[in-house]
Amino acid sequence: MKNTSGFSTFTQKARPALREELSRAIAPAEEHSTPELLEMITYQLGWTGENAGLKTEGKQIRPQLVLLTASAAGGDWQAALPAAAAVELIHNFSLIHDDIEDNSSLRRGRPTVWKIWGVAQAINTGDAMFALANLSLMNLEKTISEQIALQAGILFHATCLRLTQGQHLDIDFENRDQVSLDEYWQMVGGKTAALLAFCLEVGALCSSAPPAIQSSYRDFGHYLGLAFQAQDDVLGIWGDLEQVGKSNTGDLVSGKKTLPILYGLEQKKDFYDRWSKGPILREEAGDLRRILEEEGGFDYAQNKANELTDLALSALKNAQPQRETGEILRELAENLLNRQK
Amino acid sequence: MKNTSGFSTFTQKARPALREELSRAIAPAEEHSTPELLEMITYQLGWTGENAGLKTEGKQIRPQLVLLTASAAGGDWQAALPAAAAVELIHNFSLIHDDIEDNSSLRRGRPTVWKIWGVAQAINTGDAMFALANLSLMNLEKTISEQIALQAGILFHATCLRLTQGQHLDIDFENRDQVSLDEYWQMVGGKTAALLAFCLEVGALCSSAPPAIQSSYRDFGHYLGLAFQAQDDVLGIWGDLEQVGKSNTGDLVSGKKTLPILYGLEQKKDFYDRWSKGPILREEAGDLRRILEEEGGFDYAQNKANELTDLALSALKNAQPQRETGEILRELAENLLNRQK
Repeated sequence: MKNTSGFSTFTQKARPALREELSRAIAPAEEHSTPELLEMITYQLGWTGENAGLKTEGKQIRPQLVLLTASAAGGDWQAALPAAAAVELIHNFSLIHDDIEDNSSLRRGRPTVWKIWGVAQAINTGDAMFALANLSLMNLEKTISEQIALQAGILFHATCLRLTQGQHLDIDFENRDQVSLDEYWQMVGGKTAALLAFCLEVGALCSSAPPAIQSSYRDFGHYLGLAFQAQDDVLGIWGDLEQVGKSNTGDLVSGKKTLPILYGLEQKKDFYDRWSKGPILREEAGDLRRILEEEGGFDYAQNKANELTDLALSALKNAQPQRETGEILRELAENLLNRQK
Repeated sequence: MKNTSGFSTFTQKARPALREELSRAIAPAEEHSTPELLEMITYQLGWTGENAGLKTEGKQIRPQLVLLTASAAGGDWQAALPAAAAVELIHNFSLIHDDIEDNSSLRRGRPTVWKIWGVAQAINTGDAMFALANLSLMNLEKTISEQIALQAGILFHATCLRLTQGQHLDIDFENRDQVSLDEYWQMVGGKTAALLAFCLEVGALCSSAPPAIQSSYRDFGHYLGLAFQAQDDVLGIWGDLEQVGKSNTGDLVSGKKTLPILYGLEQKKDFYDRWSKGPILREEAGDLRRILEEEGGFDYAQNKANELTDLALSALKNAQPQRETGEILRELAENLLNRQK
């Protein structure tokens, strides 16, 4: 993603404030904890260990979406910091557990937590970050009000449940021959879209925007998540290696059940026949990609990505984002969705 | 534990109500979930699968402590049901994750969740139950008030963090030669006492008891947890096989770092010398137990258990439990602490 100038200006203010809020959010773990538990938490956050620093911390788009929305919906972004920190912590909780569940050894170019400290401690550290995320969110009681903290809590817990529902399907898909497109959307709805929908909705909630505006922001986050995933799935097969930084045709070789692939399988033609015979070799991936394209896999997925992008941008329009932060939110959305103005 | 007559009468009312509340609490998982995720949840709760039923559900002492306290502190136990369900769910969340972390294949006589569905799905199901526990607690908003729901939430999240801190130490102890008594108490404080303290405190909170009463109940739960663990550690070496249902000297053979064993190790005498040489064989456990006894291991641990029991019962007295439920709470405490009236 290219940085827009407005976003990078905002980032320069927001990231140090977020870092400070995250330090406050993990402080409860300092009492009663051994240094090791804290070390695992700060390692996962990218603050300590090999190559610690901004790059290892990740782009932190999610918490910044919370802050931008709080401001664009008429509130004070600083007041929403406890929610932004909660989002960053829950995202990292899910990364720790996902990395164990997917048996991934690397994350942001470094060994994953379970690779260094073992599965048992890694599961438990994820759980600790889950609890810290919940605690952080409750600090909205101090920055805004008891009522907003409670409403945000209920939304957050429902979101965490959706994350686990999406992850359940994702793990399940690995072991199944058949996955329907309906199931795919349900998985992405939980795994990618639910947390983004929460980011936008809680931002609007923190500004006490009217319910219709809150739900427009939520819809924006939801469609943004779905559109982003659909586009990512297209790029996983037809992406330009240099532009997207991932190997094109990679998803064909790794056997990942992405949107164009599931569409291709549903056609039960040549693509389906080859796929059913076992792993795709790197040297045949180019040919198979052409077959999938001829059978409509590219068009289906790209059209879906476009439709969802339109839905996202139209929900954002309905949310009527205000101020300079509203403008940044619009730019960021278009950028994330690979659509230049 | 023998059932007291008052407790078993209460149980007959409380358990069906708790079951109904738990059904309500897991209902959010029905939307967007596959039948399999729900099946893992109900299996862990003891409702489905092999030998499903009351025995497989466990004694449910913790949630019943919430309900008894809510009533004994002057409130309505039915109003505290969302908190009781939250406690049962978080307890089961921690069992699912602990069983993976400890590599345990059996729980309540049945295969553990990870044994049946694999580690990845089991981690994720634990996470789903964590989210469901949080959601359940928020239903206090409907049965009592927004303010109580928020306060209970903050207490609960801090408790969940303590659980993970205790578990972190417990996992860590397995891989260490040296564990101090201080560290032992810190571990038990998190792993066993924190959730019991929460059960009692949240019960009192649900009845809107004065702060001093709430904190007496919390202290009771805390010391109850510590005393129970200390007594359990004594029984793990000197227990009567038929009475306690676990093998005596068992903790010596399994090499578990319990209270009397850690005390014995700190003496650096004969017990320490033998322990340091490697695993204890079943046939030498009787002799080693006598050595540990001579070096003061039994007296130290039993005195600690007695002291903590006194602290627990004195905190309960300060809490001034009312009504018939207050009487049941007293009986239950004495029973759990192995002290007949």
